[in-house]
Amino acid sequence: MASEFDLIARHFTPATLPPEAGVALGVGDDCALLAPRPGQRLAVSVDTSVAEVHFPAAAPAEAVGHRALAVSLSDLAAVGAETRWCLMALSMAEPDEAWLADFARGFHALCAATGTALVGGDVTGGELAIGVTVMGEVPPELALTRSGASAGELIAVTGALGGGAGGLALWQRGERDLAHPLLARYLRPQPRLAAGLALRGLATAAIDISDGLLADLEHVLEASGVGARLEPSALPLAEGLVAALGDDAACRAALAGGDDYELLVTLPAARLTTARQRLADVGLALSVIGEVNEAPGIAGVDASSVRGWQHFGARTPRRRP
Amino acid sequence: MASEFDLIARHFTPATLPPEAGVALGVGDDCALLAPRPGQRLAVSVDTSVAEVHFPAAAPAEAVGHRALAVSLSDLAAVGAETRWCLMALSMAEPDEAWLADFARGFHALCAATGTALVGGDVTGGELAIGVTVMGEVPPELALTRSGASAGELIAVTGALGGGAGGLALWQRGERDLAHPLLARYLRPQPRLAAGLALRGLATAAIDISDGLLADLEHVLEASGVGARLEPSALPLAEGLVAALGDDAACRAALAGGDDYELLVTLPAARLTTARQRLADVGLALSVIGEVNEAPGIAGVDASSVRGWQHFGARTPRRRP
Repeated sequence: MASEFDLIARHFTPATLPPEAGVALGVGDDCALLAPRPGQRLAVSVDTSVAEVHFPAAAPAEAVGHRALAVSLSDLAAVGAETRWCLMALSMAEPDEAWLADFARGFHALCAATGTALVGGDVTGGELAIGVTVMGEVPPELALTRSGASAGELIAVTGALGGGAGGLALWQRGERDLAHPLLARYLRPQPRLAAGLALRGLATAAIDISDGLLADLEHVLEASGVGARLEPSALPLAEGLVAALGDDAACRAALAGGDDYELLVTLPAARLTTARQRLADVGLALSVIGEVNEAPGIAGVDASSVRGWQHFGARTPRRRP
Repeated sequence: MASEFDLIARHFTPATLPPEAGVALGVGDDCALLAPRPGQRLAVSVDTSVAEVHFPAAAPAEAVGHRALAVSLSDLAAVGAETRWCLMALSMAEPDEAWLADFARGFHALCAATGTALVGGDVTGGELAIGVTVMGEVPPELALTRSGASAGELIAVTGALGGGAGGLALWQRGERDLAHPLLARYLRPQPRLAAGLALRGLATAAIDISDGLLADLEHVLEASGVGARLEPSALPLAEGLVAALGDDAACRAALAGGDDYELLVTLPAARLTTARQRLADVGLALSVIGEVNEAPGIAGVDASSVRGWQHFGARTPRRRP
């Protein structure tokens, strides 16, 4: 068994890092030793992905590796942080070298694409689950939080919604072509790190859409002490969503499906043009979907019409302690 | 289910933190925002504790909470870091409020005792497992690593060995009195943070003893490119160990049992008196158990006599990627 775990360990030893990665000591000692930059806040988050709770156990291992990192990086995006480092804790019943090689390829590829250095972690026995801790940096005055929304501001989302739930629905129907745009959205979400950086100084509040638009908007409203009116017809729907699910289910997926990993932000109307220009520079749309007001709750949607909408993790929602 | 998870969330919302905790934004947003101190290295590590792999599922929840944090803090101790912050990722099949309250009490008590601020985490469905990410700080020139040992130096350990394996053996025999010193050693290990700080500038290499003395010494020897001779008769045995296991098994437990969370260090003989004085100030002994030399491997012990010794995690050893 030990030799098999040595195989695992080798899959997660990253390439030599450049000095600007700020890694004085990386994988292989009791701790990694990192060099945070002066004057920055350290932004940290952890997300755990459990097989059959957060992703299908039969999903391609490369996608599982990508996705486990992506959902954590999405939290850095939501606070406007620049990603720097991550730790990866993997539990699996038995080491499977082919699976691990694919998993590691997906994980490392997203590390490389985003400039995130894997600096440590552990591999243990147990049911298949991956916990990824991410660390990034953001200047104190530019950090985005959930609590800054004010009445009169616009509510906007990056990219398109419903793809996560749409992809899950397709997966459950047997679709296995990862090139399908909805399946790609579900299994290989793209953390909106560039959007988070672009919205620094423009957004007044932000959150990533992991639990579903309504649930995540509710978190912002509660933290900010405000309410909202949504315009469901303005929701930007993921490519292929209506064709796959039909109009009604597509709208429900966008409102409550979760797993989209887009950013939901509030901002004054006067900043909308600048925000859209900056997001266009990183290849993303920014759609206005409603307005912040003073009346508690979310108006404009019939909550009962989306109640009972299930996504994969619905029986065990992820909650932050 | 959501309301039950809200109960969980409440258990992990810590008390208000003082400004010196360096927490600009704590539990409850997408990321925590922290203020590292200038000129320090950020030391980070994650350890996952899985029920029935790393601890008995029937262990008292308060001890499980303590232990999950302690094993991660032990990594900070091993590099001589001062503990600052942690993230806690808990998976469990069904929320059990009484269990969670006890678990949280154990976790928070060790946070308070060590000055570690819980700044975030997540709670998900899945088999019972706890991943704890710890973050601490150490001046660059004072960080202890595994790679600094040189031939001619002494090998020493803090405290006493074999208590982890001895406690597990007692647990498996049905002992349930957590006041028993061996059971306390196994279920409520004390991370040697003060010892790690005290050994800054004195130890040339360090590691915490989680996998067993021989295995962890081997990590130091490999990282440092040296060998060692051990003096088994010099091993400091945990209180009650010989009485519980007998002489032979006590020695094997100390050599290979693991789960002790003492520090193993190397240091020049000329620094021994100072090191012992500093450790005495924090209530710990420092026992010389051997010497570093140039011959590869570990001399002085009959490896075959300890081969096959099992501890709880033996079938799925924890390995760092």
